Amino acid sequence: MDDAPFDARDFRQALGSFATGVTIITTRAPDGEPLGLTVSSFNSVSLQPPLVLWSLAESSFCLPVFKTARNWAVHVLSSEQEALSTRFASSGTDKFNGVEIEDGLGGIPLLRNCTARFQCETAFQYQGGDHLIFVGEVKAFDRDPRAPLVFHGGRYAHATQRDSRADKPRSPYLAGSFSDNFLGYLLGRSHFQFFGQIKPLLEAERLSDEEFYILSTLTLKPQMTDAQLDAGMAGVLDERSSTALASMVERGLVQRDADAQGGPAHYQLTSAGRESALRLISAAKAVESQVIERLGSEESAVLKSLLHRMLDCIDPAAEKLWQD
Amino acid sequence: MDDAPFDARDFRQALGSFATGVTIITTRAPDGEPLGLTVSSFNSVSLQPPLVLWSLAESSFCLPVFKTARNWAVHVLSSEQEALSTRFASSGTDKFNGVEIEDGLGGIPLLRNCTARFQCETAFQYQGGDHLIFVGEVKAFDRDPRAPLVFHGGRYAHATQRDSRADKPRSPYLAGSFSDNFLGYLLGRSHFQFFGQIKPLLEAERLSDEEFYILSTLTLKPQMTDAQLDAGMAGVLDERSSTALASMVERGLVQRDADAQGGPAHYQLTSAGRESALRLISAAKAVESQVIERLGSEESAVLKSLLHRMLDCIDPAAEKLWQD
Repeated sequence: MDDAPFDARDFRQALGSFATGVTIITTRAPDGEPLGLTVSSFNSVSLQPPLVLWSLAESSFCLPVFKTARNWAVHVLSSEQEALSTRFASSGTDKFNGVEIEDGLGGIPLLRNCTARFQCETAFQYQGGDHLIFVGEVKAFDRDPRAPLVFHGGRYAHATQRDSRADKPRSPYLAGSFSDNFLGYLLGRSHFQFFGQIKPLLEAERLSDEEFYILSTLTLKPQMTDAQLDAGMAGVLDERSSTALASMVERGLVQRDADAQGGPAHYQLTSAGRESALRLISAAKAVESQVIERLGSEESAVLKSLLHRMLDCIDPAAEKLWQD
Repeated sequence: MDDAPFDARDFRQALGSFATGVTIITTRAPDGEPLGLTVSSFNSVSLQPPLVLWSLAESSFCLPVFKTARNWAVHVLSSEQEALSTRFASSGTDKFNGVEIEDGLGGIPLLRNCTARFQCETAFQYQGGDHLIFVGEVKAFDRDPRAPLVFHGGRYAHATQRDSRADKPRSPYLAGSFSDNFLGYLLGRSHFQFFGQIKPLLEAERLSDEEFYILSTLTLKPQMTDAQLDAGMAGVLDERSSTALASMVERGLVQRDADAQGGPAHYQLTSAGRESALRLISAAKAVESQVIERLGSEESAVLKSLLHRMLDCIDPAAEKLWQD
């Protein structure tokens, strides 16, 4: 346990371990200019009367205006408003440039598409060291069920619901086997179930799972060598895949071009192969849309982001695959 | 935009859209009893002097003690302290029962394993409607880089770092194909790469991917029919899998028992099959540990939770598979 006096940077980091939402607080200067700044020190205070608070640095150039302003609005930002947060955290003076606003209580500028907005009238101003604490009475508010922007440890973050399943994993009869919370199981099952949804179409196209992987990998580049195809298939090309590839060449879905200089042969999709690949990919995209709709767009974005980061850990080849 | 007076429940919901960390604030009563309660209205105020604030309901039975207490401590809870948060949010009087504490400034009880702790001396007490606002000067603090517990929309949540990749997906040359942010691609690649790490062991055991899936599915129950095995394999058993299954029976890894009543045959692992399955599963668990170490335990927990929830959306059979 440290003892005061302590390092300001350490202290800021410790404070940053408390996660918060992000707000933009706006008002209008006496000359009519809209004014706003990004604030994470917001919090609720009272229900009756409805009061909220936030603090502003005594050194802020906005302080004189807020000190005399009768009204101000707190905008709780949504997950999609990170850029707006960054803009209003800067010291620029043209923050409202191109930003759509509405007029609120006493003419205060209101931003759109927020998670919640509170229109306030200053109730108290309290001393708080190098900051001034503003307590406002909420005169009007509205909200919109959007995922929130979160700030934690000096960075923006996502908030996702907790799920208690990890705390009570179910194990099979065989001791030493995996539980239903084993990552490998979850990945495998999610993968198979996802593509299981397009199984009827795969059958209609007379393609095995493996052939579909080959087709879709060949959509990545105009043509690919065996080695590139293998990397694209995440190393699952084996003898059996070579048979599948040969069969697809025979069925006119893939074209094999020998290299004139004696280098490795190249594979590319024929127009029939392209059409088949696109029909299947379009069906798989519909599955994705369904998942996103059911899981929620924020949760889906987090899932994707975590899969990306997991691939960064175990799959250095993925990056190369997408380079031109 | 609503107009005051407004519904208290609506107002609370709107306030709840601002995400916060969760703290437990403790002090010691004049009679020596430790006192503590869960608070999300904490925030930072000032760096010089170092000040923080929180508010307490005027109706709280703790109010008289905090009003006269010289010192109190704010504990920013970690993701693993949800149960502690729930306990200290209750009105019980034996909250400290069995909780390990240390003595802090002025004898205040300090909890362990928090993300950060701030030991404070009351600087100001301000009126805030039905709450009293406590501003404290931080006299000592410590922190521990643990993932934070987050509260949002009336529920506990996880915070995960944002990743900008979703905003700039890379697309292949073929218009209409998938980008590197396509969920199906991410699931497939993650799945293959995860198990790609145990490929050498699979080869040493002379097992194909498919045979490994069959073996590990057979660890779920003492014996399984074709139909159960098929459900366990998430519907990927096809004609080829039947061949794989027959081959494993022949190689003494799986035992096939015909049903005396003429019902479906049952499959179960032989002891050789069990041993092989457990060697591979143990290697796969080592891959999981590696991923969790690199990705972080909090992020891994969120990834698993989202995969569970995705399976809930598209895979009603998974639940049945794990029932006894």
